[in-house]
Amino acid sequence: MEIVRPAITSIGGYVPGEQPQTHDWIKLNTNENPYPASPTVSEAVAAACHRLEVYPDSSATVFREAAAEVYGVDPDWIFPANGSDENLTILMRTFVDPHETITYPYPGYVLYETLGAIQGCKVDPMLYDGSWNLDCRALAKAHEAKLALVPNPNSPSGTLVDKSSYEELLPDRGLLVLDGAYADFADRQEPDEVLTGKFERRVVVTRTLSKSYSLAGLRFGFAIAHPDLIHAMTKVKDSYNCDSLAIAAATAAMKDQAWMLSNRDRIVATRQRAAQAFPELGFAVTPSHANFLWIRHESVPHERIYEELKARKILIRYMKFPLVSWGDTEFDGLRVSIGTDDQIDALLVALKEIL
Amino acid sequence: MEIVRPAITSIGGYVPGEQPQTHDWIKLNTNENPYPASPTVSEAVAAACHRLEVYPDSSATVFREAAAEVYGVDPDWIFPANGSDENLTILMRTFVDPHETITYPYPGYVLYETLGAIQGCKVDPMLYDGSWNLDCRALAKAHEAKLALVPNPNSPSGTLVDKSSYEELLPDRGLLVLDGAYADFADRQEPDEVLTGKFERRVVVTRTLSKSYSLAGLRFGFAIAHPDLIHAMTKVKDSYNCDSLAIAAATAAMKDQAWMLSNRDRIVATRQRAAQAFPELGFAVTPSHANFLWIRHESVPHERIYEELKARKILIRYMKFPLVSWGDTEFDGLRVSIGTDDQIDALLVALKEIL
Repeated sequence: MEIVRPAITSIGGYVPGEQPQTHDWIKLNTNENPYPASPTVSEAVAAACHRLEVYPDSSATVFREAAAEVYGVDPDWIFPANGSDENLTILMRTFVDPHETITYPYPGYVLYETLGAIQGCKVDPMLYDGSWNLDCRALAKAHEAKLALVPNPNSPSGTLVDKSSYEELLPDRGLLVLDGAYADFADRQEPDEVLTGKFERRVVVTRTLSKSYSLAGLRFGFAIAHPDLIHAMTKVKDSYNCDSLAIAAATAAMKDQAWMLSNRDRIVATRQRAAQAFPELGFAVTPSHANFLWIRHESVPHERIYEELKARKILIRYMKFPLVSWGDTEFDGLRVSIGTDDQIDALLVALKEIL
Repeated sequence: MEIVRPAITSIGGYVPGEQPQTHDWIKLNTNENPYPASPTVSEAVAAACHRLEVYPDSSATVFREAAAEVYGVDPDWIFPANGSDENLTILMRTFVDPHETITYPYPGYVLYETLGAIQGCKVDPMLYDGSWNLDCRALAKAHEAKLALVPNPNSPSGTLVDKSSYEELLPDRGLLVLDGAYADFADRQEPDEVLTGKFERRVVVTRTLSKSYSLAGLRFGFAIAHPDLIHAMTKVKDSYNCDSLAIAAATAAMKDQAWMLSNRDRIVATRQRAAQAFPELGFAVTPSHANFLWIRHESVPHERIYEELKARKILIRYMKFPLVSWGDTEFDGLRVSIGTDDQIDALLVALKEIL
C-alpha cells in the first residue's frame, strides 16, 4: 500500500516468541522467570487501582527513587519506560537520524535491526567470530556508529563482553548502549565506572523487570544514563508512557531485592545443572551468564528437535542467523530458557525420547 | 549536546497539564473523569496479577474482541495501544516520512506538532477562523498532507467538525485521523460511513479509555481502521506495547458500557449547568461536545484567573495559542474540565471571589 512509509513496507516486522494463552505448556522459549513476582507487587497494584481516573506521575518519581537507591545513582539518572523495548525505541528516535548507522553484535538481539529499519537508518552488525568474540574488524563498526547496542549478557549466547572491550565499543561520535536485560543473572555486574569518567555522557545502560523480577507481563524497563541524555529522551517519550499500576508494581518489585535475588539464585543453580546435563545428550552448550542456554546438537537438526518438543507441549526457541555460517550452511541452534528444576527435568526426559 | 538529533534539540517537548501527586486539589485541568472506573476493572486487575511472570498476549485479543463488539466491526479492525498518545506516535512512524507534511486544526491538540517534529516531518496547521470553523484555505492543507489529524471533538474548543467536511478533510495521498478522545461526550458519534466506501482505507479513528472510561491512569487507547492499515501499524509497535494488567482492565471497562454511559450522562448534565453559570460571571462559553468547556473572560486576564485559582488549590488549564490572534494580541483562554457538581460549585464560588 503506497500510503505506508517504504521503510515499513520493506520490513517483515519483528516476530516475538510464541505466547500460547493456555496454561498447559512448559514454556521455555521467551526467557520468562518461572517463579512469581514478589507478593508486594499485587498489594501495590490493588492500592493503585483506587485512583485510576487520574493520570500517572509522568516522571514516575517513586520508581526512579527506588531504582536510584539500588544502583547508587541520583534519581535523575533513571529513565523508566513501558518495557525495555520502549527504551530501545526511544533511544533510536532521540539519537539516530536516517543518514546515520547503528551496530550490534550478531548473532544477537535482532530487534535492534527492526528498530533501526523503522527509524530509517543504516544497520551494520558486528559479526561475532565462531567463539562469540568480536575481532578488530567488528569493533571498528562500533567506532563509526551513532549507536552501538550491546546486549550484555548477549542473547542467544548468554556470553558477556569482556570489560576491556567497553572502550573499544564506544562510538567516536555516538553512544554505547549496554542492554542489561539479563544482567542480574550474570556472575559479574556492570562496573560503576561504566557511567563515569570518559563514559559519563556516552553510555546508556538499560534494564528490564521482565526477567529477573518476574514481571514480563507488566512491561517495565528503565535506562540508567547521565541526566543530559535523559533530558533529550524525555522530550521523545509519550508524556505518560508508564501507567499507574505499572509504576506501583515496579516500585514494589524494585524495593524487594531479596525476592529477586533469591529467584535469581535458584535459576542460576538450575542453569548449572542443565549445562551439565545437555552434553550427555550430544549438545554443545555455550557457558551462560543469563537465564537461558544456547545449545547445539552434534547431529540432529535443530528445527526437528524444536518441532518434536512442541508436539509434546514443550516450547523452546529455534533460532537461525543467516548472516553467519561458522562452517555450517546456515548457523542455527536452540535457546532454552531456564525454568524450574521440574520443567528442565521434563525437557530432558522429552529430549531423550526424541534423540 | 551534538549527539542528540537536531530535530530533538530544537524542540521544547510537549508539556502536559500539571499532575500534583497530593489529593487535596480540585483538579479540573487535564480532562480526567471525576468518577471512578467500573468496579469490574479492579477485579480484572487482581485476577491478572497472578500471572505477571509471563508476557502479555501481544495482540491483546480479548480487548480487541470486546471493542469490536461495541463498535460493530471485526476484531482485526481494532489496534490497542499504550494510551491514545502511543497510537498517534505509531501513526507518525508508520505513515510519515521526513519530506512529508502533517496538518491539524489550530488551536487544537498541539501534541501533534511535537510528534511531527520528532518524526522530522513538516507541520502546517489548518487555522480555525474566529468561530472555530475551517475555511477553504485551511481545508486545502488537508488535501496536501500525509496525515490530517482532527480531534473530534476538538480541544480546547469542544467543537465538532461538521459531517459534511469529512470528505474535504481527506488527504489526496494520505490518511485522515479522527481523534475521538472526547467522542463519547458528544451529542452525535462518528457515523459508521466514516470507515466504509471511499473512506475505507483512508480514515483512522482513535479512541482512549482515559476520559469517558475513567482510566487516565491506565494508559489505554485504541485505533479503529481497515486491517491493511493496522497490519502496517503492527510492524511499528513494540511487540508487547500493552501490559497484562492494562489489557485485563481495559477489557473489563469496555464490557461495562452501562457504567461508562451513566458517568457520561452525569458529566454532560454538569457541563450544561456550568455552561449556563459561566456567562453570569462575564465569561463567553464555546458550546462543547466534550468533558470540558473553553471559556474566555470579557475583561480579566486569563492567566491571572488561573493563578488565583491555583493559589486556592483549584487547577484549571490556562492555554495560549500564539499562531492566531482573532483581534487580541495573542489568543488565550481557560479550559475547564467538567468535574462533579460539587467541584464545579467550588470553582464558581472561587471565581466570584476573584472576579
